[in-house]
Amino acid sequence: MARVLITTVPFADQNKLPFELLDSVGAEYIVNPFGRRLQEAELVEMITDFEILIAGTEQITENVINNAKKLKFISRVGIGLDNVDLLAAKRRNIQVSYTPDAPAPAVAEFTIALILSLLRSVHISNSQMHKGEWQRHFGRRIPEITIGIIGAGRIGGRVLRRIQSFGSPRILINDLNPQDNIAPDLKLEWVGKDEIYKNADVISLHIPLTVKTKNMIGFKELMMMKSDAIIVNTSRGGIVNEEDLANVLNSGHLSGAAIDVFGKEPYIGKLSEIERCLLTAHMGSMSLDCRSRMEIEATEEVIRFITGQKLEQLVPPTEYDIQKK
Amino acid sequence: MARVLITTVPFADQNKLPFELLDSVGAEYIVNPFGRRLQEAELVEMITDFEILIAGTEQITENVINNAKKLKFISRVGIGLDNVDLLAAKRRNIQVSYTPDAPAPAVAEFTIALILSLLRSVHISNSQMHKGEWQRHFGRRIPEITIGIIGAGRIGGRVLRRIQSFGSPRILINDLNPQDNIAPDLKLEWVGKDEIYKNADVISLHIPLTVKTKNMIGFKELMMMKSDAIIVNTSRGGIVNEEDLANVLNSGHLSGAAIDVFGKEPYIGKLSEIERCLLTAHMGSMSLDCRSRMEIEATEEVIRFITGQKLEQLVPPTEYDIQKK
Repeated sequence: MARVLITTVPFADQNKLPFELLDSVGAEYIVNPFGRRLQEAELVEMITDFEILIAGTEQITENVINNAKKLKFISRVGIGLDNVDLLAAKRRNIQVSYTPDAPAPAVAEFTIALILSLLRSVHISNSQMHKGEWQRHFGRRIPEITIGIIGAGRIGGRVLRRIQSFGSPRILINDLNPQDNIAPDLKLEWVGKDEIYKNADVISLHIPLTVKTKNMIGFKELMMMKSDAIIVNTSRGGIVNEEDLANVLNSGHLSGAAIDVFGKEPYIGKLSEIERCLLTAHMGSMSLDCRSRMEIEATEEVIRFITGQKLEQLVPPTEYDIQKK
Repeated sequence: MARVLITTVPFADQNKLPFELLDSVGAEYIVNPFGRRLQEAELVEMITDFEILIAGTEQITENVINNAKKLKFISRVGIGLDNVDLLAAKRRNIQVSYTPDAPAPAVAEFTIALILSLLRSVHISNSQMHKGEWQRHFGRRIPEITIGIIGAGRIGGRVLRRIQSFGSPRILINDLNPQDNIAPDLKLEWVGKDEIYKNADVISLHIPLTVKTKNMIGFKELMMMKSDAIIVNTSRGGIVNEEDLANVLNSGHLSGAAIDVFGKEPYIGKLSEIERCLLTAHMGSMSLDCRSRMEIEATEEVIRFITGQKLEQLVPPTEYDIQKK
């Protein structure tokens, strides 16, 4: 009988289908009892007896993999693979699948929520009103500004297509593989990252965390930005250096920031003391429908694995190449 | 020489063109020195010597008008006319103009900001994170829900056209004059207000404050709504009964509310103590470009009045009819 460890939480909270699928093939499964992201040592201890892991964003390091003596398959709920040592998994012949499309609409919509909140100071006014202070803030509208998008993949493209209906801002965009037609009603200017840092009013990141993107935006890049620019990160913690961002905001530079993802989660740090830094608890993909879809897709892949069918969402070789650095 | 009292504040803060226009015709003007909305008694005292009023949302009652012995023209910066006693003005042969189109794009974009914040608990997570609490909230996406729009005019239509790019939610819509084609990519269901209260997940108001809409949404209507519905008011204070809304939210009904407009501003009241009630300080129209456009349009109309040209933005008879009875 296949034994499945489910580390991502919450799991099947809203839609029970993943459990029903596992039951239908007689799999035995355990859900992470801590109710939060596991530490490496906890995972090392828990994983020894399991053949299959339904994973979240916890660190699945070489150390974890070497201790997972029976592990044959990792099905990652979500898109980022920065937490999985793909090369170590490959050496042990452990296959890895993921669900790259499922979370994209939820993250894109969440990103728009953060951009609009920052542009109109919704978060600041809300916090003032709840303290009994009445202060009216001027804001800027999408068609009046320059938007910089770094990463034109599944999520970046969706962000642009949602922006379209607000009018036609100037769009500066950067990607390793520029491609036309990701937002047919907008004129896109494909530029280098420095040009985005220097000229955009809103900068939004939609890239994976890799050796190359870790700390990509630190003190130097933040200071290149316009004094009233805003930066939004719904991609991965670690890409924007949190310490540098806090220092730069405290110096009065930038008109705001919205950060949904952190190097260490739960986040504890200086950004919490900065009112104009809008903070959310890694909720980008957490719409009920997208979360359910991610869980169901990851579980369906597990069912294929257990029943010997062809896997449909295997991580492609390009993701392994990124980790070869 | 024409004497102009400017009561709306801030005024010409970002763009000085209104002052330049007034200077160009040799007008003498004074800007509201209190820096906030005037009380009726203050306005009665200030207005006596002025021929022209560039007005905000302060109460221009019959009492004010009867004390404004020299007043000949009111140019209202914005769209709502609930604060101007049009019939009293007419009896004294005071003409009234307004700028109905200028604020609409800003209010529509702001409304989308509030809807998305509520749907994804951005305001709640932000307030928790600033207190050092990490709690991940599930949310709902636009295409998964039913949106109810009350008022399909300049702003309601723009809200719908911005929603289009997020996918196709079910749209229930109510207006005195149903009209097709206000959002060509969406299927609109024209229904009665009660049907919206009972079936919508998000209810957004885009109607004027009149005798008929005052307290339109009170305890009874709020309790008709789904237990996890959200309500958004960026139109006028007084349409949603604030006291009833606070009581209903405190009872646990409704998953949230966003209120930008209040019966008395600055707002002081019980809603400030309710975390899931997103509050902003009447900022819907306050984008730099729309605010400037409103001020410039209102001032251009004043210049036309002073120089004896034909007025272009006179309040139409339908607005007077609303105030009869």
